[in-house]
Amino acid sequence: MRRTPLVTLTTDIGWAYAAQVKAVLLRHHPDLRIVDVAHDIRPQGVREAAFVLGHLVPRFPPGTIHIAIVDPGVGGSRAALAIRCPDGTRLVGPDNGVLSLAAAALGGGRAVRLDPHRLSPEGTSSATFEGRDVFAPAAAKLASGRALSALGSPTEWKLLRWPKPNLRSEGVEGEVVYVDVFGNAITNLPVEMLPAGDRELRLRVGSGPTRRVRWARTYADLSPGSIGVVGSSFGLLELAERDGSATERLGLTLGDRVALTRARRAGKGGK
Amino acid sequence: MRRTPLVTLTTDIGWAYAAQVKAVLLRHHPDLRIVDVAHDIRPQGVREAAFVLGHLVPRFPPGTIHIAIVDPGVGGSRAALAIRCPDGTRLVGPDNGVLSLAAAALGGGRAVRLDPHRLSPEGTSSATFEGRDVFAPAAAKLASGRALSALGSPTEWKLLRWPKPNLRSEGVEGEVVYVDVFGNAITNLPVEMLPAGDRELRLRVGSGPTRRVRWARTYADLSPGSIGVVGSSFGLLELAERDGSATERLGLTLGDRVALTRARRAGKGGK
Amino acid sequence: MRRTPLVTLTTDIGWAYAAQVKAVLLRHHPDLRIVDVAHDIRPQGVREAAFVLGHLVPRFPPGTIHIAIVDPGVGGSRAALAIRCPDGTRLVGPDNGVLSLAAAALGGGRAVRLDPHRLSPEGTSSATFEGRDVFAPAAAKLASGRALSALGSPTEWKLLRWPKPNLRSEGVEGEVVYVDVFGNAITNLPVEMLPAGDRELRLRVGSGPTRRVRWARTYADLSPGSIGVVGSSFGLLELAERDGSATERLGLTLGDRVALTRARRAGKGGK
Repeated sequence: MRRTPLVTLTTDIGWAYAAQVKAVLLRHHPDLRIVDVAHDIRPQGVREAAFVLGHLVPRFPPGTIHIAIVDPGVGGSRAALAIRCPDGTRLVGPDNGVLSLAAAALGGGRAVRLDPHRLSPEGTSSATFEGRDVFAPAAAKLASGRALSALGSPTEWKLLRWPKPNLRSEGVEGEVVYVDVFGNAITNLPVEMLPAGDRELRLRVGSGPTRRVRWARTYADLSPGSIGVVGSSFGLLELAERDGSATERLGLTLGDRVALTRARRAGKGGK
Repeated sequence: MRRTPLVTLTTDIGWAYAAQVKAVLLRHHPDLRIVDVAHDIRPQGVREAAFVLGHLVPRFPPGTIHIAIVDPGVGGSRAALAIRCPDGTRLVGPDNGVLSLAAAALGGGRAVRLDPHRLSPEGTSSATFEGRDVFAPAAAKLASGRALSALGSPTEWKLLRWPKPNLRSEGVEGEVVYVDVFGNAITNLPVEMLPAGDRELRLRVGSGPTRRVRWARTYADLSPGSIGVVGSSFGLLELAERDGSATERLGLTLGDRVALTRARRAGKGGK
Repeated sequence: MRRTPLVTLTTDIGWAYAAQVKAVLLRHHPDLRIVDVAHDIRPQGVREAAFVLGHLVPRFPPGTIHIAIVDPGVGGSRAALAIRCPDGTRLVGPDNGVLSLAAAALGGGRAVRLDPHRLSPEGTSSATFEGRDVFAPAAAKLASGRALSALGSPTEWKLLRWPKPNLRSEGVEGEVVYVDVFGNAITNLPVEMLPAGDRELRLRVGSGPTRRVRWARTYADLSPGSIGVVGSSFGLLELAERDGSATERLGLTLGDRVALTRARRAGKGGK
């Protein structure tokens, strides 16, 4: 027996608008199981949602349909996309890069540009809410077994420019790519880039002053009130404060450049 | 085979209290499928929830049971209601108007005043949380096929006074009836009231000064930082700022009066 | 036929991280039905989550699996627990007390210390996110029928120190144990402790001045702007302001001591 399809929702539109998307999904396909990933992506946070989905989608069962609605260009010339990945996972959302990290994480795939005229009898769609009027019916049709090719014509998709980490002789340089609810700052620096022996480090944010930070295996290894570097659950280096907000403490924000270098040995430090 | 019933929840009580409602629903009827519409309706936001439900309920599959818990008069003399609409949809909540726009959108229906004594063996109910102790068991019984008439005695329901839009020779007057998570201000003015040819408009909030705004098909047609008027996905005129919050920018709040008039032609404008 | 198991999630990790937990649950057991209790427990709010779960869990169907992820000691020496209660309910989370009120409410049970090596082929786990890497696979295995004893070795669990209410000749003394989304302050004082005849009371917060408050059956019985004492839906005394936030009005916060005494009769009051 075919299992009832799973559809996930990742949006910046808040719960009340997202409920309209769920209503349309359930109206088309009353048995769907819907998973609310998040509706509190920051407004227009395409990169935030792309990051969340890039790390999330490979953990879901293959064949899941993921809808992303972070869509500042809604109603404009950007395409509406559906992508089918090699493991059967489907991604639906605007062609602004929000799906690109998830697609990459699953090894690519093939995409169609969704044709609104094939998605509703009237082909009508609000110019301000294609999540409800285009993505939701598209996802429902995919969940019902409709082929990708029935929903639009083949297309390429926009890739998100993602910052590359830099390895320097004295350390690593990267940027803050995600801030979580605790105020931890996740960087684009893979944990492997930082030698595990380096317990004492210097952190520099932008062109600010450097400060000593400590590499720690987990939050509990930090002393309260001090900033540390831990291996995040994303496999990326993370700036964290025990029981506090590192971004608040450091005045950090998304996109800030961070450099981590080896601390000079005691006696060589100071001014 | 009968499909597992859908129950939705629209509340101002936050997630933790809402979980108690879900627990009671599932205890009565373990197969229910529950949809979280929103638990972040602003406290005592009867009108906000009524607006959300009025636009949402017609999009759900007929037969869905919608519970609203925005209930500042809980435990007092206001009735607890269950309404059955012509398409089989059921609405459950307090008789404070929160269900009235949804009922109107579905063509009315018939209602009963819920009798707590028929809903639990003991007829006991917290005076501060009828959402859990009255609405949830009522919804669960309806989901199990119980007739409306078994849960209470027939009654009428309270209608919400909703502002009427005004058409003036020089434009339209209405008020802000909803503010979304982006800070867009949705008015009670149907998009049809504003001639599509009027690309340049004057906006006046309350008795404040007027400012030029632009009619735009969608957000992307606005220039960054400028305020525009778009057709919202509710079919109502909406004041929006591209990638920003129009309510913040304009100091707008729920219930504010707004007037939109045709801008004078260039050369006739100025002071 | 076996019913699809229910799994609930109560966390301080926010929606995006919680979605990773859901992904792992569904990957292990695609038919699970997941209930989002709350993902906005305040950061490191072990006591808040314990209170929520203690009052919630007895209302869910027996056999439900409840996961708690409020885990400031993640990756450290604290154990990861699974507890099986007499009614078949299972509790999964860190051994920091977050599960202890729920377990007590269900009459105790027996626990195992989860062994990561039995939960994934590689026994690998992020040192910063055991909710995803340990609790979720454990819950999924329990949902699939695996015995508790297969997941770890027997252990005891940490109890949360919970304040005892004090009965004085002139009234009651306790503390604020929960603040809800309305700003109501729920105390640890059972409603039975306050004689129902006492309609006029004096409230003292910490060592501050006393103020008159009114006992009221429900919010609607309070006059707007005044503070009252109501019987909360938890069965505990609650400080509330009608259509407002009592905690804001009184400057109250979690853990604050509160004393309620009988007001002196008119004529004996005043300076």
